[in-house]
Amino acid sequence: MAPQIRRLQVAVSGLGRMGARHANHFLHRTPRAELVAAFTPDPKELAWAQANLEPWGVKIYSDYDEMLNHKGLEAVCVATATTVHAEQTIKAIEAGKHVLCEKPLSTELSISEKVLQVAKAHPQQKVMCGFSRRFDSSYLAAYQTALSGSIGRPTILRSQTCDKYDPSGFFVAYAEFSGGIFVDCNIHDIDLALWFFSSTEKELPKVKSVMAVGVTALEPDLAKHGDVDNGVGVVEFHSGQIAYFYSSRMNAPGQHDMTEIIGTSGKLTVNANPTNGLTESHLPSGIHREIPQNYYERFENAFVEEARQFTDAVLDNKAVPIDIESSVEAVRIGVALQESLRNGRKIFFDKQGNKVEDGSRAKL
Amino acid sequence: MAPQIRRLQVAVSGLGRMGARHANHFLHRTPRAELVAAFTPDPKELAWAQANLEPWGVKIYSDYDEMLNHKGLEAVCVATATTVHAEQTIKAIEAGKHVLCEKPLSTELSISEKVLQVAKAHPQQKVMCGFSRRFDSSYLAAYQTALSGSIGRPTILRSQTCDKYDPSGFFVAYAEFSGGIFVDCNIHDIDLALWFFSSTEKELPKVKSVMAVGVTALEPDLAKHGDVDNGVGVVEFHSGQIAYFYSSRMNAPGQHDMTEIIGTSGKLTVNANPTNGLTESHLPSGIHREIPQNYYERFENAFVEEARQFTDAVLDNKAVPIDIESSVEAVRIGVALQESLRNGRKIFFDKQGNKVEDGSRAKL
Amino acid sequence: MAPQIRRLQVAVSGLGRMGARHANHFLHRTPRAELVAAFTPDPKELAWAQANLEPWGVKIYSDYDEMLNHKGLEAVCVATATTVHAEQTIKAIEAGKHVLCEKPLSTELSISEKVLQVAKAHPQQKVMCGFSRRFDSSYLAAYQTALSGSIGRPTILRSQTCDKYDPSGFFVAYAEFSGGIFVDCNIHDIDLALWFFSSTEKELPKVKSVMAVGVTALEPDLAKHGDVDNGVGVVEFHSGQIAYFYSSRMNAPGQHDMTEIIGTSGKLTVNANPTNGLTESHLPSGIHREIPQNYYERFENAFVEEARQFTDAVLDNKAVPIDIESSVEAVRIGVALQESLRNGRKIFFDKQGNKVEDGSRAKL
Amino acid sequence: MAPQIRRLQVAVSGLGRMGARHANHFLHRTPRAELVAAFTPDPKELAWAQANLEPWGVKIYSDYDEMLNHKGLEAVCVATATTVHAEQTIKAIEAGKHVLCEKPLSTELSISEKVLQVAKAHPQQKVMCGFSRRFDSSYLAAYQTALSGSIGRPTILRSQTCDKYDPSGFFVAYAEFSGGIFVDCNIHDIDLALWFFSSTEKELPKVKSVMAVGVTALEPDLAKHGDVDNGVGVVEFHSGQIAYFYSSRMNAPGQHDMTEIIGTSGKLTVNANPTNGLTESHLPSGIHREIPQNYYERFENAFVEEARQFTDAVLDNKAVPIDIESSVEAVRIGVALQESLRNGRKIFFDKQGNKVEDGSRAKL
Repeated sequence: MAPQIRRLQVAVSGLGRMGARHANHFLHRTPRAELVAAFTPDPKELAWAQANLEPWGVKIYSDYDEMLNHKGLEAVCVATATTVHAEQTIKAIEAGKHVLCEKPLSTELSISEKVLQVAKAHPQQKVMCGFSRRFDSSYLAAYQTALSGSIGRPTILRSQTCDKYDPSGFFVAYAEFSGGIFVDCNIHDIDLALWFFSSTEKELPKVKSVMAVGVTALEPDLAKHGDVDNGVGVVEFHSGQIAYFYSSRMNAPGQHDMTEIIGTSGKLTVNANPTNGLTESHLPSGIHREIPQNYYERFENAFVEEARQFTDAVLDNKAVPIDIESSVEAVRIGVALQESLRNGRKIFFDKQGNKVEDGSRAKL
Repeated sequence: MAPQIRRLQVAVSGLGRMGARHANHFLHRTPRAELVAAFTPDPKELAWAQANLEPWGVKIYSDYDEMLNHKGLEAVCVATATTVHAEQTIKAIEAGKHVLCEKPLSTELSISEKVLQVAKAHPQQKVMCGFSRRFDSSYLAAYQTALSGSIGRPTILRSQTCDKYDPSGFFVAYAEFSGGIFVDCNIHDIDLALWFFSSTEKELPKVKSVMAVGVTALEPDLAKHGDVDNGVGVVEFHSGQIAYFYSSRMNAPGQHDMTEIIGTSGKLTVNANPTNGLTESHLPSGIHREIPQNYYERFENAFVEEARQFTDAVLDNKAVPIDIESSVEAVRIGVALQESLRNGRKIFFDKQGNKVEDGSRAKL
Repeated sequence: MAPQIRRLQVAVSGLGRMGARHANHFLHRTPRAELVAAFTPDPKELAWAQANLEPWGVKIYSDYDEMLNHKGLEAVCVATATTVHAEQTIKAIEAGKHVLCEKPLSTELSISEKVLQVAKAHPQQKVMCGFSRRFDSSYLAAYQTALSGSIGRPTILRSQTCDKYDPSGFFVAYAEFSGGIFVDCNIHDIDLALWFFSSTEKELPKVKSVMAVGVTALEPDLAKHGDVDNGVGVVEFHSGQIAYFYSSRMNAPGQHDMTEIIGTSGKLTVNANPTNGLTESHLPSGIHREIPQNYYERFENAFVEEARQFTDAVLDNKAVPIDIESSVEAVRIGVALQESLRNGRKIFFDKQGNKVEDGSRAKL
Repeated sequence: MAPQIRRLQVAVSGLGRMGARHANHFLHRTPRAELVAAFTPDPKELAWAQANLEPWGVKIYSDYDEMLNHKGLEAVCVATATTVHAEQTIKAIEAGKHVLCEKPLSTELSISEKVLQVAKAHPQQKVMCGFSRRFDSSYLAAYQTALSGSIGRPTILRSQTCDKYDPSGFFVAYAEFSGGIFVDCNIHDIDLALWFFSSTEKELPKVKSVMAVGVTALEPDLAKHGDVDNGVGVVEFHSGQIAYFYSSRMNAPGQHDMTEIIGTSGKLTVNANPTNGLTESHLPSGIHREIPQNYYERFENAFVEEARQFTDAVLDNKAVPIDIESSVEAVRIGVALQESLRNGRKIFFDKQGNKVEDGSRAKL
């Protein structure tokens, strides 16, 4: 018998590392979605698609605009390079599609704001930036606990994104377009701060100051892109909340992303004690465990859950779990941290999000 | 476009707690399988199937034999009550189907041996008993480490199956047909012993003695079924290996199944430090974490992986990951432990698996 | 000014590995005690004493009886080889001294009972067998929690004593006089069972059956002393409580003694997650931690606390924390486990502690 | 017999919370030291001393200068209020005594520098500021690992000092003289940064910039002392190393001080997974553990070790483990962080430790 289930008709744009995973998630792990099309201009990605997607009935396009015209297409998952996230998202919205866009919306604030503007002009369509951690079961459990009030008012948030060291030089080349470590890595941590700090307030906290420093401990060539391999940033909000971040490209055992949400009457930790499962080895050299080797090993299930929740939001016409305003705010903060890293200065903002020169106006 | 992928045509028999889960796994989470049919004689389960399976094109049967005749059916997942596992498995094999049968094969050794005999008579078909822990990523990681030789020869294995206390009296009613706590719970731990102890030996270890004791701490009525709510069992093998087990129906915070594999040069632990994710709460009363509430919360991914590996074994004509002989051996040991629990005696076996009366022939 | 504090005048008998430690504890870490004398017949130990004890004013004796006559001596800590524990303890009691005796009282039940008898004949003197774990802060915390009732009735106890593997063959030679692994190692775990099982009952549980098995995985020569390097034992009590034990001489990373106390409404674990402090190393090979290398690294503070509590009990005329009856019971169980290991049989007891031949009288 | 051991003749100044502990450590837990005198001007402390120190032969003084004249006195442990640390230390040095002074040397940089100057003028005397964490076994283990080179060059250090919330308002009153949260709490973390960052460099790192922010989440009255109950600070060093700190007065379950030392090829964590021993409770509400309630519960053994190592350094004429220059540098950084917290600005330093106005001279 043929299925009689209404399934969301989805296309994935970009079939690189993450795009291929998104395609698989919509194809095999999102029951209410049907992957009908995919776009890639890249020959290697195309070959992968012919072997792995076409046999399942997915139509492959080498032209993004043609793909948007795929008959019956309802939603697009944008998973190309960051530099074209915004452009493709806008095009898809304007073509009447719902959009799930990989983070960040852009490495530039003004472009992110443009996406927001277009999204607002199409209120019937769902537009969401994919901050995967919000769909991770451990972060979700922490959020529910925060919402319950057990830790009081979330006041301080510490969060880090630490990648395993990749000696191939990949990170140096990547830094040219990534927007820098605060925009590429800590953007997740910034998003978490916005999420948790608004959990009890019911409005987005407004940035008051940012300050960042960093070093190039293993990859001095990052300096030519104004980037570092270890960064520390601190963000004050006008609401009397503080978030501080660390990012690194040189974590030895693997991926270690962790977060503490510190409230007035308790604290939540996510991944303070990292592990890759429930196995430990007791050997003459001591007790050993392993941790995930990359963010996908850590967050695979979160990405699947992201695809499912986005699909549900569209099919059931519910609000998407991550507000696009919040994702623009994350870019504002990430970009400002990167600027502070580069010019060595603390940067101040008024409550409208405008930079102000005189720090004393914003002092304690 | 219609998919051109060859997918295994699967039916699930029984749509109770576990059967419904197996149906969902084959329907939505096993890309190379297609759930085409399901059987249940139960009206409530039927209603569930009409709402959740039929819309996806699954044909529902209330007669098992009819289901076996479903056109194109290739494989059956038997997930009914333990009392009919063996009968349905045998029928399916004789109808030419591959079979994945829930554990245990039977609560009686002779019936289990009958299944083995029928399976051997149909060597082209895949028959596997579903010991889900063998597909759990943490157990698999431990197994790979054991195979690598890092812990030397696995010599002692400790394993426990502890369920959250269910005050409804469910376990008392359930004990009438479950075969008892060693056959129902510790059968998993017995299977792990057989798996790990044969990892370096390349043959199944042969049981030499079993001894079990137990108490009814919370459910005295279990005694009328010759059962307990806390059991401790010890199994010696002729190969100079020892496994010892604990099972409980009264674990306070939830499901806590854990295993230690102790080798001559190291030890592996699985779930020594139980948790339900990566979140901890730091509250005035201390630091808190939660654990899975039942075996499905703990082993959900393992059940999905089981479905996938069974499907792969059939489609690619590979050996199934769990040998049916081993699953019969698990029943032999589980039944003997339950007998020892009931009669208070240590039970001895010769190397052929026959009980011997005189323990001294088997002494240290 | 000279101190005006009344301090207990203590002697230590035996200055081997543990004796030297006891001497140091009484000399430097037990403010209310004064180490005034020590006995050793061994030239190497004597040399150590001359260098480390004499300069602090401690008188060294090579004759035990002479030491007992040391002017003002009030208490003796017996820390010689197990074979003379009982004899020296009895002599000291009869000389009017309080005694802290290292565990076990003896490797023979009848001799242990003799000590009890002599102790009872001198009710004004304090006699205590030094089961160090009862003074460990983690065990004490667990005991307080058990006493509070939070875990209900302690019903199952699992406990293990696992030594780091010593490839020198030391354990083989040692086995000649140690009484075997259940009497030497698991005696601690047996003591814990007696302690926790009587916490809510207020009387010592009475052993109903014991069963033990074991293997010589690394040291086959242990067999000539009727011993093993890995042992598993199960003890049933007439009170409906069960303790099960594991001991090993081949733990790879170091000492790992752990205990679970399982009650009808909760469970306490001690050292489920072993570590040697609060440091972890995150290296390319994973996350690593170390554990104590021997029981003294694990229990050093407990031994000091033992000396302090014994001293307080004498000076303040309070009951000693460990009842001597209980320590005799521990020998009864340890010796029976070792016997079961050797003859391969389950051993049954009536409520008076007499062995009974017919297991069926004691069956479930 | 009277002891013939040469013991350091020590006095303790101040018998408040920490002073009384220091007195006990020198009296009962530092075998090579003899507590001969103590000073307190406070009637309550005096009463405590009469009950607890005098009976052990300790002479009590209510005049500090008189105590310095105690016959045979060799060393003084200064444990009074922070405001008189420097004055008493200088007096003791000038009286020819060795000095162990509680941290910090002073809440003012110039006064700390005066202590350094006096200490340098008396090179035969040992002068050490008591940063207790350097004597904690977990920190020592981490330091040895860092020295071994396994983590490469220590590059980033994160460290926090978090006290259990004390609702009595104690912290508000205390803030008047404490120098503020960065000088009082994070001074320990600053000291750790100086220690670890110089482990491979063999010279003290030179501060390049500091930036701090904070909030008064529970105690708004702290603002009147220019202080906060939660502070975050970041310190850059000219050596290309970064330390970032967090301090809090509102940690819910107790004291949680933790540190990460991140090197170019590995990371060390100290207390990432806090606990108060090895016990966990498995209850219907989940798994629970407790943590130390205050810094003394966490660091008691470190304080004892500090007394012992100071004593050894004097008696054996070795360098004290903590260089006084380093302790002055810690004050410089702590005071600057507190200043940055108060004026909202980032503060820059040249390599000579002088503040420089133009941040751009110090930019990335």
